[in-house]
Amino acid sequence: MPYINVKITDENVTREQKQAIIKGCTQIMVDVLDKDPQVTFVVIDEVKLDDWGIGFDQVSKLRENTLKSPLK
Amino acid sequence: MPYINVKITDENVTREQKQAIIKGCTQIMVDVLDKDPQVTFVVIDEVKLDDWGIGFDQVSKLRENTLKSPLK
Amino acid sequence: MPYINVKITDENVTREQKQAIIKGCTQIMVDVLDKDPQVTFVVIDEVKLDDWGIGFDQVSKLRENTLKSPLK
Amino acid sequence: MPYINVKITDENVTREQKQAIIKGCTQIMVDVLDKDPQVTFVVIDEVKLDDWGIGFDQVSKLRENTLKSPLK
Amino acid sequence: MPYINVKITDENVTREQKQAIIKGCTQIMVDVLDKDPQVTFVVIDEVKLDDWGIGFDQVSKLRENTLKSPLK
Amino acid sequence: MPYINVKITDENVTREQKQAIIKGCTQIMVDVLDKDPQVTFVVIDEVKLDDWGIGFDQVSKLRENTLKSPLK
Repeated sequence: MPYINVKITDENVTREQKQAIIKGCTQIMVDVLDKDPQVTFVVIDEVKLDDWGIGFDQVSKLRENTLKSPLK
Repeated sequence: MPYINVKITDENVTREQKQAIIKGCTQIMVDVLDKDPQVTFVVIDEVKLDDWGIGFDQVSKLRENTLKSPLK
Repeated sequence: MPYINVKITDENVTREQKQAIIKGCTQIMVDVLDKDPQVTFVVIDEVKLDDWGIGFDQVSKLRENTLKSPLK
Repeated sequence: MPYINVKITDENVTREQKQAIIKGCTQIMVDVLDKDPQVTFVVIDEVKLDDWGIGFDQVSKLRENTLKSPLK
Repeated sequence: MPYINVKITDENVTREQKQAIIKGCTQIMVDVLDKDPQVTFVVIDEVKLDDWGIGFDQVSKLRENTLKSPLK
Repeated sequence: MPYINVKITDENVTREQKQAIIKGCTQIMVDVLDKDPQVTFVVIDEVKLDDWGIGFDQVSKLRENTLKSPLK
């Protein structure tokens, strides 16, 4: 009965992408640990860019400053 | 000084129900462990139905598909 | 399908006390929100006294310094 | 590669205050544990006042009832 | 820069199984959201059977009582 | 009444270092948000190197393979 919490930045993640995350994480629990998917929870948290920091800075700042491909 | 985090699906939970959850969880800490309620935190997270998965599927999908009484 | 995480200090909590916490928290979900207990998880984390801080200090320090009844 | 999660009540925290929290927490990891800030995450969760309980009550209730300086 | 937390019961999970969980969850982030694996964290928590409850009971109790294939 | 959770790898962190983390994080809450330290919790989780993944790999693997200064 695993519980998986996925925290990602809130950047236009679609319903289909969320479904794929849930399906994929659940499948890993089945494949690797033989867990029962009916009692496997996956909870996704989308975090606003002002609320996620890396390298001393808010991701919202990083998005403004980056000309090159952004850190994802 | 317990910290209790309650994650539930976001389905019209009322202010009174939240108050009942907070009161009940705090009372358990007092009754079972003799904790001080003044330093007992209860934090409730309501999770959108697209963001909670069980049995490979989003709860939002389960709600659409279920004719019988829903999984709660 | 609630998920409840209870964080408490690691101070000789018995198996029976843990069972009472699990039972009590699950009952709240049933009583207040009509949740299904078969898909209600309660996960208890016991945190060592060096690893929990309140009021600038480790709880292990507070336990050493307190002559009066301790903060719980 | 630390992960720091800061949960606070949702009470008009500004972007600048969030930036200061992120900067400060990351600096602690660098100063105390010599961690690499480029792989140090700080995630802030703002919790609505109905969803945070202390002393048996919702913070939203406490805010209504308190004439003296509020518990923060 | 996702953060994934996997909570599972503490039942002889091998180092290789943990590696498979980490690899699999990271790959999902790359495949579904094009995330950078170098800043994707996966943290596994193994929870003792006395500390995980489902259906009002500790998993340790469920393991004792079950003759049929156990709930996993 | 903030709650701060600090997750770090389990690599000989001393009691003094933990105290410094608790003190520092609490001070940030006081300085930036004028929070009351008496109801500010800091909880530190030390995660075993097999249980933390980054860049597809367990940190325990990274520690074995790295000749240069390790990712921290």
